[in-house]
Amino acid sequence: MNNPANLFADIPEQASQELFSNLLDNPHCRIERIVSYGQSSPHRFWYDQGSDEWVLLIQGSAALDVEGQMVKLVPGDHLLIKAGQKHRVTHTDQNQPTVWLAIHLNEPAKS
Amino acid sequence: MNNPANLFADIPEQASQELFSNLLDNPHCRIERIVSYGQSSPHRFWYDQGSDEWVLLIQGSAALDVEGQMVKLVPGDHLLIKAGQKHRVTHTDQNQPTVWLAIHLNEPAKS
Repeated sequence: MNNPANLFADIPEQASQELFSNLLDNPHCRIERIVSYGQSSPHRFWYDQGSDEWVLLIQGSAALDVEGQMVKLVPGDHLLIKAGQKHRVTHTDQNQPTVWLAIHLNEPAKS
Repeated sequence: MNNPANLFADIPEQASQELFSNLLDNPHCRIERIVSYGQSSPHRFWYDQGSDEWVLLIQGSAALDVEGQMVKLVPGDHLLIKAGQKHRVTHTDQNQPTVWLAIHLNEPAKS
């Protein structure tokens, strides 16, 4: 059966940590929902990933630092972060949950 | 550089045909934006695809027939349509553009 799930289900109004949920975990890509509540990456922390990641901001607002370039994101904004491009989240919305869709490309499924 | 593009850019208020735009065409998956203007699949037409497709309805509303099962979609609804699952679009919103995100999994890049 093909019953849909909803991206906005189970989003608390507030949370002390970001929420990460796999929507699909396929041998060829992993589709993840991330919900942020004003969090940003820790000082001097950088994501440095082994696979390309395509990110779409669905709700809220955010800013990224991608190898020194500041990228502001509003709903509908999407970008590709290539494997090895160091990046960090410098800002997420303080007034509402920020909902991201992240497509991790060519990431092997966890065994 | 990592300048974002926006999913809602270049969406006319009305169009006589559905719009299909590749947002990313990767050897491991193709990410496509589809905009519908009340269109549905032709009578007796069925999509029958060789790769899995993950669909997210972003804006508007729609209904699918997936192998005889009716699936209504509102914003945020997502579902996986497996390769070989015959499906057709039976309805899209008459009052506003319907915006879909379709992730075609494991589809080879066009050469």
